[in-house]
Amino acid sequence: MPQIPVITLTTDFGLTDHFVGTMKGVITNIAPEARIVDISHSVQAFDVLDGALTIAQAYSYFPSGTIHMVVVDPGVGTARRPLIVTTERHKFVAPDNGVLSLIYDREDRLSVRHVTAEHYYLQPVSNTFHGRDIFSPVAAWAAKGVESDRFGEEVTDFVRFSAPRPKVANGDSLRGVVLKVDRFGNLVTNIAAHDAPLLFGADPSGFKIVVGKSEITEIKTAYAQGAPGQVFGILGSMGFLEIAANRGSAAQLLGVGKGTEVSILLEGASAASNGQ
Amino acid sequence: MPQIPVITLTTDFGLTDHFVGTMKGVITNIAPEARIVDISHSVQAFDVLDGALTIAQAYSYFPSGTIHMVVVDPGVGTARRPLIVTTERHKFVAPDNGVLSLIYDREDRLSVRHVTAEHYYLQPVSNTFHGRDIFSPVAAWAAKGVESDRFGEEVTDFVRFSAPRPKVANGDSLRGVVLKVDRFGNLVTNIAAHDAPLLFGADPSGFKIVVGKSEITEIKTAYAQGAPGQVFGILGSMGFLEIAANRGSAAQLLGVGKGTEVSILLEGASAASNGQ
Amino acid sequence: MPQIPVITLTTDFGLTDHFVGTMKGVITNIAPEARIVDISHSVQAFDVLDGALTIAQAYSYFPSGTIHMVVVDPGVGTARRPLIVTTERHKFVAPDNGVLSLIYDREDRLSVRHVTAEHYYLQPVSNTFHGRDIFSPVAAWAAKGVESDRFGEEVTDFVRFSAPRPKVANGDSLRGVVLKVDRFGNLVTNIAAHDAPLLFGADPSGFKIVVGKSEITEIKTAYAQGAPGQVFGILGSMGFLEIAANRGSAAQLLGVGKGTEVSILLEGASAASNGQ
Repeated sequence: MPQIPVITLTTDFGLTDHFVGTMKGVITNIAPEARIVDISHSVQAFDVLDGALTIAQAYSYFPSGTIHMVVVDPGVGTARRPLIVTTERHKFVAPDNGVLSLIYDREDRLSVRHVTAEHYYLQPVSNTFHGRDIFSPVAAWAAKGVESDRFGEEVTDFVRFSAPRPKVANGDSLRGVVLKVDRFGNLVTNIAAHDAPLLFGADPSGFKIVVGKSEITEIKTAYAQGAPGQVFGILGSMGFLEIAANRGSAAQLLGVGKGTEVSILLEGASAASNGQ
Repeated sequence: MPQIPVITLTTDFGLTDHFVGTMKGVITNIAPEARIVDISHSVQAFDVLDGALTIAQAYSYFPSGTIHMVVVDPGVGTARRPLIVTTERHKFVAPDNGVLSLIYDREDRLSVRHVTAEHYYLQPVSNTFHGRDIFSPVAAWAAKGVESDRFGEEVTDFVRFSAPRPKVANGDSLRGVVLKVDRFGNLVTNIAAHDAPLLFGADPSGFKIVVGKSEITEIKTAYAQGAPGQVFGILGSMGFLEIAANRGSAAQLLGVGKGTEVSILLEGASAASNGQ
Repeated sequence: MPQIPVITLTTDFGLTDHFVGTMKGVITNIAPEARIVDISHSVQAFDVLDGALTIAQAYSYFPSGTIHMVVVDPGVGTARRPLIVTTERHKFVAPDNGVLSLIYDREDRLSVRHVTAEHYYLQPVSNTFHGRDIFSPVAAWAAKGVESDRFGEEVTDFVRFSAPRPKVANGDSLRGVVLKVDRFGNLVTNIAAHDAPLLFGADPSGFKIVVGKSEITEIKTAYAQGAPGQVFGILGSMGFLEIAANRGSAAQLLGVGKGTEVSILLEGASAASNGQ
């Protein structure tokens, strides 16, 4: 636990309503000393995978003892369980719908508990805003030093999904997908550096990247290396292949978006398979 | 006054300009120890009622001693007065244009003062940005412990409007309105649970809700109970009837928005009146 | 250095991704006691001038010792240098691309240093997210009290551009430009009060302001003085002429935007030149 407790917020609540402000009120009322840091409130509405990706990209940069509250919760008010998860360095408070799946993947030492200690909830509990009534007060009490085992029993049957992984197709190509389009129009794929070592070595050549109807044959190491209007591949800051443009939006230039298939073809291999 | 003073901000300034950052600079310069919490800066531009609704939904969750600054101020630079309002637990700093009307409604013990002590202002005072020049420094000095009576004299003729209330029509139906569409596309009405107890009891039936050209006959207790594409009523987290959909936008599905009339008709009664 | 160190953030990263949250994680990990204040993350993507304007409007309101981090950085990953700049009251951490040009203009005492002390960076340094890997940790270490000269050597050949200034045309008119459209639709020009003293004196007359195809002959001192639908000039809160409307968007009413030319013509002079 750091001297100054930190609570991060990752939600799909947006910033146009009172939701986030209200949750901060609840937290501040219980744990006025806690530092509250927004990761993002623009997770796509109801999109648990997008929430999982967002917290996975940010959490590890925070200090030991940070409590990450992740509320993408289309099942609010149903039997889905509230969880408190402890890893080696952090804690997570979230609904049991898989939004912490990438945390489960990356962390070796995990304790997952079903929060049942209702005396830590805000009363009365609504059916539609557990971010306010359950997750915020639980995160705040955890920041006050309440140990995880005080919130409920450990469970092992928590919901967990796999993030989409690229697949080898035809033995000689790799087929991935655009996981998200970032603020700059970069297409962030699920193809990691180790999935396609050919692309990120010295002087990459002999490949093409197919995105929608476009073929890309250039890899750059900085956005500014691209010519105006040119679309290229680049190793993004989270270790994944991005399709990008210099001072422009690759998504707009290519007319594609989230969910678009991204294939990497080896040129020789591709010619061979064409000849069959 | 809490150990750590808290100042909340509710404005229509948006986040695309320097406005909010500048106000935080002013506050931090005067009261570096104050915790600043954004409630929302996306109040609809110039919309005093929307500002009144936003602060009303959030303020009560904050700790005692919190100072709520509310700046939706189309009359900036005119004779409209700056106010500091003290309630039993909180203080409010805002222009005298009714943006605190719902606070006046809900709080029994109120002191409303016209801020005239210009030595607490930032000098020179502009005519176009009192959020920076008047409201931020007054909130900051209040957070430093300056008592409300030091800012000016009490007034009783402050501007106050009534939030739109649902009306009984034909003796057997209730006619309300959509106050706002939230981030998820839920239509938040002004019909409170106690206005329509029939809807929120056990096994509600014998009614229909008319929104635009659509009729709704289902009440759910959790968003996730809705079938795909189905629109239903639900008791929202602030105690009002919402028209909602499961993982979808009721506003889009119905093609309606803020200001749309929402009527609750009792079926038997409705049939009777049809027969007249 | 204030008792509570303050770090402000001005970027074009938007709020829809994890970028800003990740940077706050890096800062909080190094300097948990630092107060982080967002100025804006909605600088137009890749627009260094827009970034320069945004920080210039806000920085001076912050306490002495504040560290302003400004990351609008289309050249990330290239040879453009990271800088730490010290002025009489503040420090700035930014890429060497001119984004601090208006600070250089306004501050008399300046020390500009090329940050080369890589042991203050987050390792490994990516090529695409120096906001996370270089600027955040440098700002955080500066907030911890590391002196500027520890980060690198002073340089004098830093990139600096001039903000567009209005020009006198035909000897009797002044030609400026819309620098930005704010949240309310006000057109913020680059014409300062001292550029056009005639407009902002008592009872201004004998001029017209030409914006696109529209002529404006009214100056107001408060937005609320405008008639519905009327477009007028007003002295904005940063000391520049704005074209505005009361409770409406001048940008929409006139159908113009950023980059539009704004000319001030003296009526007599204009008539004279028409007669030639």
